[in-house]
Amino acid sequence: MTSTECPAIVTYAPQPEPDLRCEQVLVSTSLEDHQLLVQMVATGLCQLEVHLSSDSEALGGSKYPRILGHEGAGYVKAVGAKVEAAKVGDAVVLSYDYCEACRLCSQSQPAYCENFHQLNILGDNGSKFRAIGNPHSPIVGGFFGQSSLSSLSVVSERAVVRISELLKDEGELKLFGPLGCGFQTGAGAVTIAGSAASGDVVVVTGLGAVGFGAIMAAKIAGCKTIIAIDQVDSRLGLAKQIGATAVLTTADRRDLRKELSNCLGDRRLSLVIETTGAPNVIEVLVDCMGHRGRYIQIGIPNKSNSGASINLPVLSLVKKRIIVEGNAQGSATATEFIPRMIQWYREGKFPIDKLIQPFPADNFASALRGMRDGSVIKPVLIW
Amino acid sequence: MTSTECPAIVTYAPQPEPDLRCEQVLVSTSLEDHQLLVQMVATGLCQLEVHLSSDSEALGGSKYPRILGHEGAGYVKAVGAKVEAAKVGDAVVLSYDYCEACRLCSQSQPAYCENFHQLNILGDNGSKFRAIGNPHSPIVGGFFGQSSLSSLSVVSERAVVRISELLKDEGELKLFGPLGCGFQTGAGAVTIAGSAASGDVVVVTGLGAVGFGAIMAAKIAGCKTIIAIDQVDSRLGLAKQIGATAVLTTADRRDLRKELSNCLGDRRLSLVIETTGAPNVIEVLVDCMGHRGRYIQIGIPNKSNSGASINLPVLSLVKKRIIVEGNAQGSATATEFIPRMIQWYREGKFPIDKLIQPFPADNFASALRGMRDGSVIKPVLIW
Repeated sequence: MTSTECPAIVTYAPQPEPDLRCEQVLVSTSLEDHQLLVQMVATGLCQLEVHLSSDSEALGGSKYPRILGHEGAGYVKAVGAKVEAAKVGDAVVLSYDYCEACRLCSQSQPAYCENFHQLNILGDNGSKFRAIGNPHSPIVGGFFGQSSLSSLSVVSERAVVRISELLKDEGELKLFGPLGCGFQTGAGAVTIAGSAASGDVVVVTGLGAVGFGAIMAAKIAGCKTIIAIDQVDSRLGLAKQIGATAVLTTADRRDLRKELSNCLGDRRLSLVIETTGAPNVIEVLVDCMGHRGRYIQIGIPNKSNSGASINLPVLSLVKKRIIVEGNAQGSATATEFIPRMIQWYREGKFPIDKLIQPFPADNFASALRGMRDGSVIKPVLIW
Repeated sequence: MTSTECPAIVTYAPQPEPDLRCEQVLVSTSLEDHQLLVQMVATGLCQLEVHLSSDSEALGGSKYPRILGHEGAGYVKAVGAKVEAAKVGDAVVLSYDYCEACRLCSQSQPAYCENFHQLNILGDNGSKFRAIGNPHSPIVGGFFGQSSLSSLSVVSERAVVRISELLKDEGELKLFGPLGCGFQTGAGAVTIAGSAASGDVVVVTGLGAVGFGAIMAAKIAGCKTIIAIDQVDSRLGLAKQIGATAVLTTADRRDLRKELSNCLGDRRLSLVIETTGAPNVIEVLVDCMGHRGRYIQIGIPNKSNSGASINLPVLSLVKKRIIVEGNAQGSATATEFIPRMIQWYREGKFPIDKLIQPFPADNFASALRGMRDGSVIKPVLIW
């Protein structure tokens, strides 16, 4: 099995603090039929990297060492025998993997693939990455079918979205990498899962890439009321610039229920995109839902709130006819939705350039720190 | 204002026992632009009549005396100036009213009309019905735009589905009246809200008209696993005849969680239609939902369980991506869905004749008793 050496950010088991190291690894260049070798240009970081590097039990457990990264963009260097999604030299954005075989995949719902957790979160058994100097020591790869926190990686064909004709210059790959998960999830939740239209009254909680994706999509859908909720003032300010018609802070122990009720007035809250996972925020939002409103949960509670629940009174559920759902990837199919987001960007409606901050890949620590302290919305590592 | 005398079943305030009386009333025959005068042939009874006649606080309060009835079928005797839905002499099945003006109506979702509660549950101010001998004493009408527990009633045009060309003989109106709510709700929940297909694993709890409507529709959709749950053995037997592939009883303090788990095996529970409102049943079902399963709540808790809640752990909601919704009328638009059910009946796939039991209208007490003791699935009063 041939292999080559490349720099990667390897995640080791938390000690209990996150232990990520930029180091040289060996990546196998023997491709299976439906795999591609991709040279990364840029990789977005998201809360999943924070969760899985700091909590070994998050999302059903994690094996270490492993290579995370699930918002990669780059160029195809080689393709497996049966690959049709792209050819050598193509520019690609990477998204999520799915099985194509289960009932939900066969119903064109790959984001709800029954094997999503296995294919994307758990990853493979590490056959593609090895430690330098110890080729028998596997490093788990295959995260979201891409493990794009390696400058060179073996990628599942299903995670690949070819964008060669949509790309103006290589610099744009630094912008488009993060389209593969965070922005897609927020914008898809509004556009696809929420079918937002001009009459909708939308609340978005948590202003990371998912939240901003939701706000931009709600504005594109023409929603007249878009309320953004966060605890970081600078993000609330940016949300107003980007499309929010009102903002509410959760800082300073404010009474969110009262403030949201005042802000809504007699308008019917018809769509909520919840990305914080904070129990006190969730409780207020569910209670405030209007008739046939749709509440979309995306945020995961942090470790100290892992037992948090939504309480739905049955009588109220039946009378208000609300819908509560856990959402994946905004219900989007990446090969359709990523080109749509790029088109929106071209039209000036999806200003991701205002939300992204590049970091040299080996300065990943600063990027993660910026996510944690709220100063960086979407860090992108440049290889 | 001209009026005419006719027999009706008037519901008085519970004492606390239900107080329904078959008596002569005066019905106004002065029609507004979008009203029709309908001579009822048959009117189905459903749990809503039981709820609203026995609990004055159910569903937000009720004014008495009133005329209930929301599964009427009959012939048009007169039409208002602007009626287009039917003409004099037409056979009609009556369903629910909606406003045509709100955002949800304008999105072709009349079952979720923002004014549904006002138009259907609360009814109008009684201007159409008066007590004999006391013409200043109003009786509340307009229940579901029809108040079809009167042999003659003034009906909202939007509640009317014209079926003249679909009817073979007048006797069929005794079968088709109940299509307007119960069967539509169950069959629509499976077909429209649940988008059921052959791979679905469906559980239906509570074998009234809604539950049987759901089972028949699931069989029509080709669902390979259809599990019916109830406490009445005779209904479970009938469910097996009609399409259920397995049945579970909730009688005898059985361990439903264990029995359902055994019954499911490793199959993914993808669709639940819950019509009992029983908290212990609801809890088991929500816990057993499979990946991206859809849980549809239709049943209302009884008075002693009015505070019952569904508990949704946030982490599990996000990981399993389930959908929980309160549903109205199976999300169906009656003018489309009632003809579809009649067609299914013609093809032998929707055997409502096995589920319906006729009673002379003045014997409504026996009909209600049969619903309460479980011996009658769908009583239909014949005028």
